[in-house]
Parts: sequence; C-alpha cells; structure tokens
Amino acid sequence: MLGSNEVNDKEESVIKVSVLYPNSSRCKFDMAYYLNKHMPMVQQKLGPACKRMAVEEGIAGGAPRTPATYVAMGHLYFDSTEAFQTAFAPHAQAILADIPNYTDTQPIIQISEVKL
Amino acid sequence: MLGSNEVNDKEESVIKVSVLYPNSSRCKFDMAYYLNKHMPMVQQKLGPACKRMAVEEGIAGGAPRTPATYVAMGHLYFDSTEAFQTAFAPHAQAILADIPNYTDTQPIIQISEVKL
Repeated sequence: MLGSNEVNDKEESVIKVSVLYPNSSRCKFDMAYYLNKHMPMVQQKLGPACKRMAVEEGIAGGAPRTPATYVAMGHLYFDSTEAFQTAFAPHAQAILADIPNYTDTQPIIQISEVKL
Repeated sequence: MLGSNEVNDKEESVIKVSVLYPNSSRCKFDMAYYLNKHMPMVQQKLGPACKRMAVEEGIAGGAPRTPATYVAMGHLYFDSTEAFQTAFAPHAQAILADIPNYTDTQPIIQISEVKL
C-alpha cells in the first residue's frame, strides 16, 4: 500500500511480465496451442519462481466495433525482476523458439510492478 | 477449459477490460491519485458488476535498458461484456472526466476474455 515504508513495499512487491501480441486483420494466433502447449512448457521451465500465469484473448477495442489492440496477452508473476531474469535466462532460447508454433506476430514484452 | 462445450464456456467466461496508458519520456502519471482516488471512484460507480480490479506500474521493457510500453495499466473484471457496458455507460462521463487529474496520456482500452 502507498504510505507504508520502502522496505515493506519491496518485500511485498510482485512483478508481472506481460507478453502482448499485437492484433492485425491477417495475424495468426493458435490459442489452443498457447494454452495447452506453450504456457505449460513455460511454467515447467520457469519452475516455482513463476508464481502465477494469466492468459487473455482480445475480443474488442474500447470504442464500438473496433478490434482489440492485442490478439492475446500472457502474464507471468514473479517475486522480483531478478527472480524473473534468473528463471528465464537459461530457458529463453527454448521458450522464444516455440513462438512461431502458435503465432506470426512479434510480441511486446513489458515488466510491471503490481500495485493493486 | 478448451474442449468443454460452448454453453459452459460462456457461463464461466470472465471479461477483462484493460486500460493501457502509453509511456513517453515526458508523460505524467500520478499513481497515488490513480490508486487512492480514481480506482476507488470507479469501483464505487460500477458497483458489484465489477468483480475485481488490478493496477500495474510499468518499470521496463523486455530488452535490457528499454522503457515500458505502458506507464500504467488498469484492469476491471466483469462477468460479460454486457455487464461491463451496462455498469459503465451511466458513469462513463464522470469516469473519463477524471483522467486528466492523474495523467496527460490517452489510454488504449481493450476488452479481453480471460482464458487462464
């Protein structure tokens, strides 16, 4: 919570790594493969450092009859940026090499701190 | 889960409305106001239709020493797109009018279906 001291903020922080797949009219995204093959593989490789995963499929933009900006979004939660980097680095090549098996889009990656 | 029938998929679906605030070197985002004033006001106006909220602050991009694509992200969860629209429409003006109080960025809105 805001207002608590810095030490507690650090101890309690959660890091969310978001993988955002830009949408386009011709893009391919195999959600079944992503849910049933890719994400379980990622969880297995990252191990217990990855505390939680979330996946969403874009269905619409904010304005009526506009497409979603992202065809899909995947999120991985860690205790710290260092925990993410330590878990991810040894498996980065294998994880990234699987992306063409379910999509032809180039994902945007963002690291965020969970505030609420 | 994939493979279950369509009726169950629909009954169990959760909709996530993401409000993504693009980052720039000069952009302003008052996270304290967003967490302590804006989001509680949104929750109060949307009422029980809004099942859950989440907020993240962007800290980095995926590549070393790159900035986050979004300075902040807010997420609202509903049972359906209709539940969101019904809850949001009467309060849209008041909610949108509060945005300049915490940021000068123009958010991107995306509606997604939670798959995992």
